[in-house]
Amino acid sequence: MIEVGLFGASGYTGHELVRLLLRHPHAHLRFATSRSHAGRSLAQVFPGAPDLPLVAPEEAPLEDVEALFLCLPHGASAETAAAALQLGVRVIDLSADFRLQDTAAYAQWYGIEHPAPDLLKEAVYGLTEVARAALPRARLVANPGCYPTSVLLALYPLVQAGAVAGPVIVDAKSGVSGAGRTPSLTTHFVEVADNLKPYKIGRAHRHLPEMEQALARWSADPPPLVFAPHLLPVPRGLLSTLYVPLAADWDECRLRALYQQAYGREPCILLLPPQEPATLAHALHTNRCALGLTVAGGTLIVTSAIDNLLKGASGQAVQNFNAMFGFDEQEGLI
Amino acid sequence: MIEVGLFGASGYTGHELVRLLLRHPHAHLRFATSRSHAGRSLAQVFPGAPDLPLVAPEEAPLEDVEALFLCLPHGASAETAAAALQLGVRVIDLSADFRLQDTAAYAQWYGIEHPAPDLLKEAVYGLTEVARAALPRARLVANPGCYPTSVLLALYPLVQAGAVAGPVIVDAKSGVSGAGRTPSLTTHFVEVADNLKPYKIGRAHRHLPEMEQALARWSADPPPLVFAPHLLPVPRGLLSTLYVPLAADWDECRLRALYQQAYGREPCILLLPPQEPATLAHALHTNRCALGLTVAGGTLIVTSAIDNLLKGASGQAVQNFNAMFGFDEQEGLI
Amino acid sequence: MIEVGLFGASGYTGHELVRLLLRHPHAHLRFATSRSHAGRSLAQVFPGAPDLPLVAPEEAPLEDVEALFLCLPHGASAETAAAALQLGVRVIDLSADFRLQDTAAYAQWYGIEHPAPDLLKEAVYGLTEVARAALPRARLVANPGCYPTSVLLALYPLVQAGAVAGPVIVDAKSGVSGAGRTPSLTTHFVEVADNLKPYKIGRAHRHLPEMEQALARWSADPPPLVFAPHLLPVPRGLLSTLYVPLAADWDECRLRALYQQAYGREPCILLLPPQEPATLAHALHTNRCALGLTVAGGTLIVTSAIDNLLKGASGQAVQNFNAMFGFDEQEGLI
Amino acid sequence: MIEVGLFGASGYTGHELVRLLLRHPHAHLRFATSRSHAGRSLAQVFPGAPDLPLVAPEEAPLEDVEALFLCLPHGASAETAAAALQLGVRVIDLSADFRLQDTAAYAQWYGIEHPAPDLLKEAVYGLTEVARAALPRARLVANPGCYPTSVLLALYPLVQAGAVAGPVIVDAKSGVSGAGRTPSLTTHFVEVADNLKPYKIGRAHRHLPEMEQALARWSADPPPLVFAPHLLPVPRGLLSTLYVPLAADWDECRLRALYQQAYGREPCILLLPPQEPATLAHALHTNRCALGLTVAGGTLIVTSAIDNLLKGASGQAVQNFNAMFGFDEQEGLI
Repeated sequence: MIEVGLFGASGYTGHELVRLLLRHPHAHLRFATSRSHAGRSLAQVFPGAPDLPLVAPEEAPLEDVEALFLCLPHGASAETAAAALQLGVRVIDLSADFRLQDTAAYAQWYGIEHPAPDLLKEAVYGLTEVARAALPRARLVANPGCYPTSVLLALYPLVQAGAVAGPVIVDAKSGVSGAGRTPSLTTHFVEVADNLKPYKIGRAHRHLPEMEQALARWSADPPPLVFAPHLLPVPRGLLSTLYVPLAADWDECRLRALYQQAYGREPCILLLPPQEPATLAHALHTNRCALGLTVAGGTLIVTSAIDNLLKGASGQAVQNFNAMFGFDEQEGLI
Repeated sequence: MIEVGLFGASGYTGHELVRLLLRHPHAHLRFATSRSHAGRSLAQVFPGAPDLPLVAPEEAPLEDVEALFLCLPHGASAETAAAALQLGVRVIDLSADFRLQDTAAYAQWYGIEHPAPDLLKEAVYGLTEVARAALPRARLVANPGCYPTSVLLALYPLVQAGAVAGPVIVDAKSGVSGAGRTPSLTTHFVEVADNLKPYKIGRAHRHLPEMEQALARWSADPPPLVFAPHLLPVPRGLLSTLYVPLAADWDECRLRALYQQAYGREPCILLLPPQEPATLAHALHTNRCALGLTVAGGTLIVTSAIDNLLKGASGQAVQNFNAMFGFDEQEGLI
Repeated sequence: MIEVGLFGASGYTGHELVRLLLRHPHAHLRFATSRSHAGRSLAQVFPGAPDLPLVAPEEAPLEDVEALFLCLPHGASAETAAAALQLGVRVIDLSADFRLQDTAAYAQWYGIEHPAPDLLKEAVYGLTEVARAALPRARLVANPGCYPTSVLLALYPLVQAGAVAGPVIVDAKSGVSGAGRTPSLTTHFVEVADNLKPYKIGRAHRHLPEMEQALARWSADPPPLVFAPHLLPVPRGLLSTLYVPLAADWDECRLRALYQQAYGREPCILLLPPQEPATLAHALHTNRCALGLTVAGGTLIVTSAIDNLLKGASGQAVQNFNAMFGFDEQEGLI
Repeated sequence: MIEVGLFGASGYTGHELVRLLLRHPHAHLRFATSRSHAGRSLAQVFPGAPDLPLVAPEEAPLEDVEALFLCLPHGASAETAAAALQLGVRVIDLSADFRLQDTAAYAQWYGIEHPAPDLLKEAVYGLTEVARAALPRARLVANPGCYPTSVLLALYPLVQAGAVAGPVIVDAKSGVSGAGRTPSLTTHFVEVADNLKPYKIGRAHRHLPEMEQALARWSADPPPLVFAPHLLPVPRGLLSTLYVPLAADWDECRLRALYQQAYGREPCILLLPPQEPATLAHALHTNRCALGLTVAGGTLIVTSAIDNLLKGASGQAVQNFNAMFGFDEQEGLI
């Protein structure tokens, strides 16, 4: 049994992570923090949540845990990670703080100087299916963003195989929990319901550099992305529709073989049969990424669906935890 | 053509009222105010709204209009009304400020001393179907609340006829626009979607004294109410299900005749045939109140549906305006 | 490990039950049937479902299982139950076939003669919290309807204690999965979304005799019910709001003590603190019934929320299975 | 006042068209047909609809009208159109029957031989903003499909100006009313809610040849399309996100000028300012197409939103009617 702690339990990813950790057979949740709700119970913050005491961040007994999950805003996350690592605690950070290796890019996209640049070098980008080999020794894991998880799992086999002939269009649609729990006009029910809203489209969303950084690791000639996120009137779930211009000699048969080889044995990837695009329903309330493949002329359309709170955040964090500590990757996730 | 003004255009009722007034054949919208968005266009506040300039309340040319609609918070509304009435402008107030005649009750439920108690006496409670006779001479109309509109139209014939034998249960369900546009956790999409939430149930909601005051005008022995509002996961629409214990000798046939006589010629009331309860769909995007009647043993179940932004607010305000100025009540509302 | 079978896997309750049984540590799902989808995989019927073969009912190896779950239409269910019981298989029936003890009432409400009236006497009405003592020896369990589960758990302590002074109003709201998966105009997305629809209100819904039968077992003078179901624009979840006229001497303090005594140790009942009504969010994706209590004058308002597919159907079926076979009642349900 | 008739009033577009025609100042709805509901009132088919008698198609007095709107399935529509035209009645057909000029393509995509190929030559493809000049003399108007309306209005200025350098990706999202009112699993509330579903993606949807035919009229070298429709969990509204590879020398400034020149005076096109993508909310319950422009590298992203039942069907039909009979195009649409 691994003693674990959690910072930031009062957001949607924190809440989901609490739920997963309380059911996990090999993890014991030693504490959960919330700055705004310290002293209260999680049940007072989320209807139906377990009666878990929330402690102030300052009072969290860091020294009592082996692993720490951070569901904090960027900036705060890196500071807490640094403190934990000094105590020998392994960290899984769900914020963006350790995703970008380039501190200038971090400053540009997140608006602050990076609080712990020395730690970047050892941070493992925790797209589990790709990072698996590095996880058992990792001290610090940067859990990927929700959009990047859906996009990168869709592109990984293609980019590695050199099957991409030009810029990739990513038309992505996310449920509202991806925008966090802080109230705003953007997340007001009346503004979202019956609506569909593109936002930060083109090359304007923070997840773009995160995705392009990963592609650059996988290929000497990575394709540029055009990225258009849309806010969907659903509480959770994320579907990315990718339009990939194919290099010569890539037909549907060869593409299916490629994905089959890459993902055929992956427990958390659901490769769909021909004619079946991925839908949110394939992925909701699971830690799976569902992938559908359709070829239209020289374009491959990949539909990639995840639950943004599970494979897109807290589920993948637990999957990474499992890989770090030698458990079956699906432990606590089914 | 009547020159009209509107205070408070940047909320949901204000926006709806602008839409109605711009289409109205006999009203000309001279100005619309917004404190927080002064200097901008309504199109910058609501996607797809008309390009209408919003002025600061202080700059509104009150003297140029004959009628004024107030979509302001309580307190602010009464102050603006007082100023307008002094200039001879007739006022239709959509806030709660002139609904309760009892200043002590107002202070208790709204938490402030009434800003203009002298005006209460002349305020007409604008449930149009009931108040019709008083409207042509009214200087100040208190537009009813959304819940009271649905409940009072359901009960009016019954209470007048003495058909109610005891306490009335009102189980009411409202769409989220009834809670206003200010962001809060209560109106966050993720909290509302897939959910149904009772709130302020029993005798705790501000609309209770408003309803009981009206009942007391209609009967020397008015029934008490038990009132349970619920927040529905829809942007607009309101359905009240009323459970009325019947006095002896009231069977379905006699009840239908009663409602037929009361409402058979009302253009804004849709009396549904037997076996057809009212649904939101009967009323959405109309200024109608749909009423369904079902008798079960000694209980009459009345289902009463309105669009909370139309018959429950801005639509009824225009209906009252029409009655005040001698136009057909449905003018601009179909 | 108990070998179990399931008839009727291609409806919503069947699908949910498959999901639960595959995760259950002490049950092994030996087969699942579907008449319309025999020969296909469950994954072809529900997006994201497990790759489980569906067999024709005739080919199900009844003799290989110890327990059988029936998610069949009424009529078909009783026939299958009879065949299974003859082979010594214990049956948990999720249809209405063994809920009503009175065959005349059954014929009246369900439109057919009861196919196996001899079995009625031994059928245990499986409202687990009440039926617990009879379950270990039960051969045949009638799993309660979704509305009755929410209503009866709300009323059980009150009726037993004699706290009810008159007719009880039940205003109930159910998500659409309660209407089954067969397409109809009633369940068409465009008809349901943004709508709220009362249906079969008064004393017209099949669950009414089921509820009154239970009340009559608990009290010599059971209260009559007025029952008004509403179709909610949500996929799952059910909230009943009950209005109970209180007998003299029952104040909030005494009522809370009553419920605390009845349910304080129940793992599947969540008794909410004062001022917190039950919402769907308290119960969704859990096997719990959340209960909130509010006293308004002489009326107790009980808000009772369940997930109609879990505590209202498949979850309670597993809870009953656990009780029948001596497992912890929550096994496989958390 | 023009006497008009309508075939097919019991679908969503028919219902919407009735609503519009009853409000139209220059049209009088002489009859409305419904095969399945003949003899009933429209109010019995749609909750809250007007009390309009529905007649059998055979009994419709074609000779009494000047114009006929057809909301019929393909095949049936062409037959009715032929009969009406012989009587001198001008026809606005909302089906697909007169959209494709190529009868082989029609047979391939719609699965039947064209019932009236002789009429194709004179059919005007009624994308109003483009077809305007031909409408006053048109006897037969093929009202465009919902997807084509949103896509073609987005592309018209670009294709005409030669600004498109390669294949155009169209990621389109439609509300469920676009799928019609006939119940099916695809439109079941539980399958649609909380979901997002790509369907017929690539080059598989019937609207593809309709769009490419229009492009081929506007350019000698029209861009091919990749078209991916998605089913959105909303009752109405349609958003197409188009990714257009730009020819050299086309920057954002020049593109804005191009659209401004094309659409600056169009009453039914809303050209959005920089940084504001089109959302469903811009277009719902209006006859407008809202267009947003974003340049990302060499790609222009056009967001194009319509109400599928208005500008995407019945609204545009009325707009065409207005143009045919010399009325202001917005008459009856505001």
